[in-house]
Amino acid sequence: MIDFRFISPTQFVFGRNAEEALIKESSKLGGKILLHYGGGSIKNSGLYDRVKEYLAKAGTKVVELGGVKPNPVLSTVREAIDLCRAEGITGILAVGGGSVIDSAKSIAIGVPYDGDVWDFYSGKATVAEALPVGVILTIPAAGSEGSNGSVVTDEDTRSKFASGSDLMRPVFSLMNPELTFTLSPYQTACGITDMISHVMERYFTNTEDVGLTDRLGEALIRTVIDAAPKVMADPEDYEARAELMWASTVAHTDIVGLGREDDWASHQIEHELSAQYDVAHGAGLAVVFPAWMTHVRKENLERFIQFAVRVWDVDYVAGREDETALEGIRRHKAFYESIGMPTSLSALGVTDNRYDIMADKAMRDGPFGGLKKLSKEDVIAIYTLAEG
Amino acid sequence: MIDFRFISPTQFVFGRNAEEALIKESSKLGGKILLHYGGGSIKNSGLYDRVKEYLAKAGTKVVELGGVKPNPVLSTVREAIDLCRAEGITGILAVGGGSVIDSAKSIAIGVPYDGDVWDFYSGKATVAEALPVGVILTIPAAGSEGSNGSVVTDEDTRSKFASGSDLMRPVFSLMNPELTFTLSPYQTACGITDMISHVMERYFTNTEDVGLTDRLGEALIRTVIDAAPKVMADPEDYEARAELMWASTVAHTDIVGLGREDDWASHQIEHELSAQYDVAHGAGLAVVFPAWMTHVRKENLERFIQFAVRVWDVDYVAGREDETALEGIRRHKAFYESIGMPTSLSALGVTDNRYDIMADKAMRDGPFGGLKKLSKEDVIAIYTLAEG
Repeated sequence: MIDFRFISPTQFVFGRNAEEALIKESSKLGGKILLHYGGGSIKNSGLYDRVKEYLAKAGTKVVELGGVKPNPVLSTVREAIDLCRAEGITGILAVGGGSVIDSAKSIAIGVPYDGDVWDFYSGKATVAEALPVGVILTIPAAGSEGSNGSVVTDEDTRSKFASGSDLMRPVFSLMNPELTFTLSPYQTACGITDMISHVMERYFTNTEDVGLTDRLGEALIRTVIDAAPKVMADPEDYEARAELMWASTVAHTDIVGLGREDDWASHQIEHELSAQYDVAHGAGLAVVFPAWMTHVRKENLERFIQFAVRVWDVDYVAGREDETALEGIRRHKAFYESIGMPTSLSALGVTDNRYDIMADKAMRDGPFGGLKKLSKEDVIAIYTLAEG
Repeated sequence: MIDFRFISPTQFVFGRNAEEALIKESSKLGGKILLHYGGGSIKNSGLYDRVKEYLAKAGTKVVELGGVKPNPVLSTVREAIDLCRAEGITGILAVGGGSVIDSAKSIAIGVPYDGDVWDFYSGKATVAEALPVGVILTIPAAGSEGSNGSVVTDEDTRSKFASGSDLMRPVFSLMNPELTFTLSPYQTACGITDMISHVMERYFTNTEDVGLTDRLGEALIRTVIDAAPKVMADPEDYEARAELMWASTVAHTDIVGLGREDDWASHQIEHELSAQYDVAHGAGLAVVFPAWMTHVRKENLERFIQFAVRVWDVDYVAGREDETALEGIRRHKAFYESIGMPTSLSALGVTDNRYDIMADKAMRDGPFGGLKKLSKEDVIAIYTLAEG
């Protein structure tokens, strides 16, 4: 186990009508907030009106900025930072999923910073201060409601970068599983894939003696696998929606990643894919992850065997270790297919070959990955394996 | 799943030399702290000197109060509160295990309170304010380094009561597994029993649809079961000590108890035992818990079957459900014995019969327990089953 520091100071309020807690919690954002959201779905559902009502009850002043797109873009963040400074905003309320929250976190670190917010993503600067961010979650997937990270795309250079700091962790997250009833099967499945990926990116490590975090991770994935077919069959299955919603958060606070080297290579390989083609992050992951697993498995076959045996109940067969590992990957891929996810680039609608461009972008800082350091050839091999 | 609120704002610093982080973290306790500890072990080990050195480096003023006993007592807490007020103490540093931390938390809520601190334990008052508490952990067991609770004994009435508030959660906890190398096998085993109990008290519930927390709890118990024989065989096995230390914390932050009714009946039954006989809490739990399980299992046999199958790998045998459940309890009891814990009152050294007195005290607020509401007869039956 590697030494670690961990803090997760978010106040979570979970359950039916959780969003009502905004009346009490909003004071943590100060007296004048930026209400940040995406498209019209929160207006259609009535959530928007309720949020405005709660904020009015709390006596909070509100400036609005909607229209955040999936894979939030740098230009919108920069605009929002200017707006917040001009309006004297004291905190940001994100109502939505990972894109809205990541955008809110980016604004939160940008407002008190002298330079350009992109410095935090390019690695030129470290976060020293941030406005408080509160969340009303509507899409369980990214785990941004409890995490220390934010991912933003610079649309000019098609670069999708991440920044991380505990100062970005939301001060509160209000989580009502009923708000997720209206998610489409596709959105739901993308979310499921994303949350499972967040566990797997921590699970596949070469760090030894990580028994507790291994088992916590397996617990999370198995729970998601149990709940997934239930929500696909009945989108209003409260209990299954609740399991997924809380699982998405726990998967990404980092409680399953403590004390171990993690491996975000597949996430990065997917980021290049979604930066090029603007595909949904979850769908991209369902394509990239099994290919990555297949490509790197022999670096630490024991770990892939453990995954197969403990998560997918594959029988361990002495002398056929690689088959055991591969059977785990096969079942994992079949699970994605069972919830309607694409597991090949062609199923994702990617028919041209930009592997070289994407691999170059992925290699910008040299070889990357924890379990196996990937070269450009590795990345191209993974895209090729993902062709299907 | 039941609606819940959850916050765990403690900054955990985990690993070799974690206590050095005190130099940086101590400012969270303000400028003048109460250094609170137990017996001489931290002086013998050199930890005491290092702590003083770190505090001096940080420029923190220090008032000392050592001598906290296992099962901390109300009179010491009251004395400490007076001392803190007289000295203008701004925060409390607990160096030790659960007893020292619980005592520190009690002082922390008592200092800013107008009335008697016992009001928080008797249920007469709710915590509205607390001094910050920091922790350097030396005994992994109680989980108090991350929990919202404190247990104190009123030695005059032999009453052991608990109080809970998120305001009591430590602001930081510094956790170095090497500090636990010198724990005796008995202390180690008591700690193991305590941390497992904290999971089981949440696990045995009638709340339905708690898939994630079930699996997280099973993950914790299985990890502790894996690590236990390693530390018993080699007290300086860093990796196994590390697993136990972090498991003890996660077991009691409440992450495995969210969204479900819990059941602290066995804890309460043990508290009466340790209030009467001053036995180690962990050892008392090893005696009481299997008896409680045996007595209540038919209230929710399915849950005891799940425990047997998933934690102890018992084969589920159709038509022999009760035997499946009992086999789980049997293996659990055998595990306690394998680490040198007593599993009967006689092995604990309790030879007289005060069941009636203890049951009366346990019943002070009427029937208690989540999975099964226990009557006085139930409590006596459990003590009787525990005779061995």
